[in-house]
Amino acid sequence: MSSWPSGGSSPIELVSLSIAASLMAGVMVYWLNAKLAAAPRGNDLMNKLSDQIASGARAFLKTEYYYLSFFVAAFFLFILILFTVDPPTPVATRLDGLRMGSCFLAGAGLSALAGWGGMAVATDCNVRTTQAADKDGRSTALRGAGTGGAVMGFTVVGLGLFGLSIMFYLMTLNRMGSTQNEDLTYALDSLAGFGFGASSIALFARVAGGIYTKAADVGADLVGKVEMDIPEDDPRNPAVIADNVGDNVGDVAGMGADLFESFVGSIIATATLANGDTTLIMLPFFVAGAGIIAAIAGYFAVGCKDGASQHDLLFALHKGTIVSGILVLAFTAIIISQTFKADTVISTNELLGIAPRSLGWRLFGCIVIGLFAGILIGQATEYFTSYTFWPTRSITEAGVTGPATVIIQGIGIGMISTVPPVIILVATILGCNALGKGYGIALSAVGMLSTLGVTLATDAYGPIADNAGGLAEMAELDERVRETTDALDALGNTTAATGKGFAIGSAVLTSLSLLTAFKVKAGVATVDITDPVVLAAALFGAMLPFLFAALTMLSVQKAAGCIIIEVRRQFAQIEGLREGTAEADSDKCVAISTQSSIEEMILPGIYAVMAPFIIGILIGPKALVGMLGGAIASGMMLAIMMSNAGGAWDNSKKYIEIEGAVGGKGTETHKACVVGDTVGDPFKDTSGPALNILIKLMSMISLVIAPIIEGVEDWENWYYGLIPIAITIIGSVYVYKMFWANTVDITAPVDGAKESA
Amino acid sequence: MSSWPSGGSSPIELVSLSIAASLMAGVMVYWLNAKLAAAPRGNDLMNKLSDQIASGARAFLKTEYYYLSFFVAAFFLFILILFTVDPPTPVATRLDGLRMGSCFLAGAGLSALAGWGGMAVATDCNVRTTQAADKDGRSTALRGAGTGGAVMGFTVVGLGLFGLSIMFYLMTLNRMGSTQNEDLTYALDSLAGFGFGASSIALFARVAGGIYTKAADVGADLVGKVEMDIPEDDPRNPAVIADNVGDNVGDVAGMGADLFESFVGSIIATATLANGDTTLIMLPFFVAGAGIIAAIAGYFAVGCKDGASQHDLLFALHKGTIVSGILVLAFTAIIISQTFKADTVISTNELLGIAPRSLGWRLFGCIVIGLFAGILIGQATEYFTSYTFWPTRSITEAGVTGPATVIIQGIGIGMISTVPPVIILVATILGCNALGKGYGIALSAVGMLSTLGVTLATDAYGPIADNAGGLAEMAELDERVRETTDALDALGNTTAATGKGFAIGSAVLTSLSLLTAFKVKAGVATVDITDPVVLAAALFGAMLPFLFAALTMLSVQKAAGCIIIEVRRQFAQIEGLREGTAEADSDKCVAISTQSSIEEMILPGIYAVMAPFIIGILIGPKALVGMLGGAIASGMMLAIMMSNAGGAWDNSKKYIEIEGAVGGKGTETHKACVVGDTVGDPFKDTSGPALNILIKLMSMISLVIAPIIEGVEDWENWYYGLIPIAITIIGSVYVYKMFWANTVDITAPVDGAKESA
Repeated sequence: MSSWPSGGSSPIELVSLSIAASLMAGVMVYWLNAKLAAAPRGNDLMNKLSDQIASGARAFLKTEYYYLSFFVAAFFLFILILFTVDPPTPVATRLDGLRMGSCFLAGAGLSALAGWGGMAVATDCNVRTTQAADKDGRSTALRGAGTGGAVMGFTVVGLGLFGLSIMFYLMTLNRMGSTQNEDLTYALDSLAGFGFGASSIALFARVAGGIYTKAADVGADLVGKVEMDIPEDDPRNPAVIADNVGDNVGDVAGMGADLFESFVGSIIATATLANGDTTLIMLPFFVAGAGIIAAIAGYFAVGCKDGASQHDLLFALHKGTIVSGILVLAFTAIIISQTFKADTVISTNELLGIAPRSLGWRLFGCIVIGLFAGILIGQATEYFTSYTFWPTRSITEAGVTGPATVIIQGIGIGMISTVPPVIILVATILGCNALGKGYGIALSAVGMLSTLGVTLATDAYGPIADNAGGLAEMAELDERVRETTDALDALGNTTAATGKGFAIGSAVLTSLSLLTAFKVKAGVATVDITDPVVLAAALFGAMLPFLFAALTMLSVQKAAGCIIIEVRRQFAQIEGLREGTAEADSDKCVAISTQSSIEEMILPGIYAVMAPFIIGILIGPKALVGMLGGAIASGMMLAIMMSNAGGAWDNSKKYIEIEGAVGGKGTETHKACVVGDTVGDPFKDTSGPALNILIKLMSMISLVIAPIIEGVEDWENWYYGLIPIAITIIGSVYVYKMFWANTVDITAPVDGAKESA
Repeated sequence: MSSWPSGGSSPIELVSLSIAASLMAGVMVYWLNAKLAAAPRGNDLMNKLSDQIASGARAFLKTEYYYLSFFVAAFFLFILILFTVDPPTPVATRLDGLRMGSCFLAGAGLSALAGWGGMAVATDCNVRTTQAADKDGRSTALRGAGTGGAVMGFTVVGLGLFGLSIMFYLMTLNRMGSTQNEDLTYALDSLAGFGFGASSIALFARVAGGIYTKAADVGADLVGKVEMDIPEDDPRNPAVIADNVGDNVGDVAGMGADLFESFVGSIIATATLANGDTTLIMLPFFVAGAGIIAAIAGYFAVGCKDGASQHDLLFALHKGTIVSGILVLAFTAIIISQTFKADTVISTNELLGIAPRSLGWRLFGCIVIGLFAGILIGQATEYFTSYTFWPTRSITEAGVTGPATVIIQGIGIGMISTVPPVIILVATILGCNALGKGYGIALSAVGMLSTLGVTLATDAYGPIADNAGGLAEMAELDERVRETTDALDALGNTTAATGKGFAIGSAVLTSLSLLTAFKVKAGVATVDITDPVVLAAALFGAMLPFLFAALTMLSVQKAAGCIIIEVRRQFAQIEGLREGTAEADSDKCVAISTQSSIEEMILPGIYAVMAPFIIGILIGPKALVGMLGGAIASGMMLAIMMSNAGGAWDNSKKYIEIEGAVGGKGTETHKACVVGDTVGDPFKDTSGPALNILIKLMSMISLVIAPIIEGVEDWENWYYGLIPIAITIIGSVYVYKMFWANTVDITAPVDGAKESA
């Protein structure tokens, strides 16, 4: 294969393979969409409800993107000016600002597009899944929801790799007087902007979506189920459409943006750590490309017969993951054997002295370790959150003595569940470090995420099945339909556990790699952990995830309060609503959820974005490394604890509802477990997942500003640090005055004058 | 003052001042005890109940110390052999093992003694306080409880400084061929053993005491209040004596051992960082001595009139703290002006080039900063946990929508409450680093704890007042008596907040100083935070507090389960118990609480003690520094979050009960807040405070083993690391087989055959 692009190839040849793979993903998305469009929609009521959900989700995303456009514009200008005035590359053409800025725009734009695409297909797919569950049975319904998930998966990886490859190529153009190797290195500098764009959108999408989905959920449940005593997903409840919209904007669009960011982040971190060596720079692109093709093959391996048992269904989904995992390793082995030849010159210092062929197989080892680590963390997550095992069952049993013991047991289980992922990641880091140093560690994250197309498909299919169930309930279809969708939904909980393993594992590995990349770029020789400035910054960093989790949880409470008041108002004022003779004003609830979740995303967003600026500029790069280290360590623990405790609470309740444990539904024990489930909602769907993005975003921002604070001594330019501090304070005061000062009072009486609906 | 002991003095002269101060504390304890003995005890029933509590507490401590004696003996032998075979000092006399071992014994023994003394006086003082509240009124009762607290406070600081000074002097004896400066340095090496002994006892005492108190509390409440519908502290409840015993062994003995450890730990860390300079080694001893005298003066400043309002009472207590704070600064200023003269030679590298007099005042600055930081953290704690302020009130209001929102709001408040302490500590670290480098940071912790005698008195008085209230209830005294003790108890909650500020602040500063001291002693030049081995170890370290908190919380659940079954059994089998005609078998409950809390302390204890051995020996000193850094950062956040969330939940309930907020007692909102309070119990009284000791203990152990792993490269002696790993695994399996396999089933039916009581 003399044409294999390697050391001597031109930039366009280098990215040709990854572009080809991403185009294949595009074809796949087109084909899947066509397949989906051919599937029948439901009856009029179902279609109407589905359209309501779709329009609510579109309205939310439009509002969100509207607000984010200001953020993106501001940071585009900031980057443009900063890097034009103070260009980081020595062969500056005064285009550095434009380069970095356009990468930022591309990253933000594509991330937003991935979220939009996922949302669009999910809201269209839900009704078709319900219809399939009604008319054709479990297997067709699984295929329907699975197709929707796959569109999402391939959209994310396709857009991610395509955008990254194209921007990388464009960034190598029009340099003057630099060698090709230098071109590639400088191009990577700008690519950090792509990651920044992607992760900032991901953060806001996850936070706003997470607040939306849980505020609507809690609000709908507390008034509907508790106060009005009407069942879940009852169309009389004005917040029920908002609740279903929430599933789409939180679990689908939010997760899409999140994993888009992970996928491109891991590639950027690895390529940056290649220290300018062409072969090593291109390897993550090739692996990601191979992963897309393997995932496509994996998709076609999924499938099962009608009337399949739960076990068969799970096996069907697992088959896809296994096939693509094996294939990606086979493809990678070919890539390694073609790019690491006996005469390949590896020019990076860190890996000097290792024979190229041997290095190739060592790096292959890192990819294998990464892939297995992701699977193992997923297994551990499943152990702690599935009611097949002791931990979740112990929570259910704790319910016998009331809600307090459910909470204590759940938090205990969540905390102890940090142990296996930490041990797996520690082993991964130590193993990959032994094989391929820092570069090897970064590459293991690429390996972990390589089959993202198919793992994300099995992950995103869960919320689609959930929504399909909601539609069945609202449209008052046969009980049997709900049972089918419930089975699919339960399956989704298990596959989601695997997905979380990949999300958390890759977030930590990528952040650690970005941290190392930052240190190299900022020209810091060593960052001594016992240096008091570094230690102080590490404490500050360790505090940030706690602050972030607190703000997001308190926001859910506040936003839910707004919904509660509105739902109560409608029940009090709209005549005939409770009796089912009048229609609820769902749009109002959607509008309130949208408004309050977007208001609430601002403050955590400001703190996440500004923290690296404050510490990096006020003190210096060494302190920033300390801050990132502290944030990654405490953020990882908190993310795992919150996600797993939430998942375990959810399933401890399901154990009672599905298996009839400890007396079954309606008992005091069941009520106690419902309390756990409600506490778990913001844990697992708002704060927990957002923490993953927080640590990646802060690491990515640090990499972006690395050239600016390169070689700066502690406190050297502290006065510039006053600018981000001022922005943070002004932002906090503004948010406080605008939104927090008028806290809702859910204890206030409701005006009961009935209006004619 | 030509006789002021400084650079040229002999070791006995050097410690003479601190020994004199600690003897003054001894005289004070003697006098206070005599005063207490003169106060009248109560009626026969009160005395009987008080004796029951005292004998229960003695039984627990005896059992605990019995088990700990094996641990102490094992580690004494281990230290003896290890340091005899491989003596760390170059002028070895083959006595290094004996020196270190005897320091370890002294530290462990004195810590145990401090706990015992505190427990003895508290269990004697409770009945006298009840009596005073009955016969003499609020002021006398306050003085009674305060005297008990003061005995505790002065016992801790007196024993601590005395033991440390004497052992320090003894360790300087019988060296051969070393200079006096070398003698002092080697003596400090052995003194790390003293800290190890103190902190291991503290850990076990805090964990076992914390599990005991909360298991008895939860067990008594769940069966008594919920199932049997009898009031709190009702003598018919068989677990009520155990509950009161718990307050003494957990909140008094546990806290005594905890702060004993903080006090000596901060002195050891500072002296070790003096790098062999006599003036700097002695400064923390002098400051601690000055603090004792200032605290004695502060004690005499406390006092108020009868019929004093809550506000007056609080002011009375604050007066003591303020007077002693001002005095300790005045004394320290005199010490500084006498020891740092123009011709004083400061020989440590870190602080070279600063004129001695200027250095003296800089270090004075560190002490001032430390003292204020402690007070500020206490203020922040009060803000987040007192129902006078927004955070706790917001939890109460969240109760309107049920227990789930109470939990979410409480955890959110707990998490956000990490922000102020972190900012205060970051400022302290940066400020003291600028003034006096690592030594200055360590010294700020000594300053923070210097007035411990009086702060601990106001802290320990709370549980005594609580117990006095319990006695009033059990002995069915007038409602008025309970009101008086409740007022004292509420006051105790506020002063406890201040105490927590000192505990957490000093724990973090001391641990960070021990970390630095370890690095110096282990001969590690720099520990780069981006070194993958260090990073991996930091993740492992950050996980440990989560594991530790999880184990302690799950243990409370399990131990409470044992109590629940026993209480149910007694109500079912003892005829006439419910009706009040037969007596409950309280001793059985005390025995069960004792047994299960001691069983449950083993596993967290093993992990805490073994973790530094595993990482330090398996990998090496650099990884150990990383592990400690991760553990301190995440442990601090978790400790603050758990303590403050617990305190806020407690007071959100009290806000309803005392102030009648949101509808008052007995409403659904009140019930929701009771759930929060129950969740908060293990948060604030078991896991939270134990985390402080965890990080100090691990740092202290590292300092002890520093000479063994000095200069070891990563993985150089990994095979030795298999030994601690094997011990950990064997210990886990043993504990699992012995105690965990026979998990109690609280859902099992109770055998109802009545026995004649």
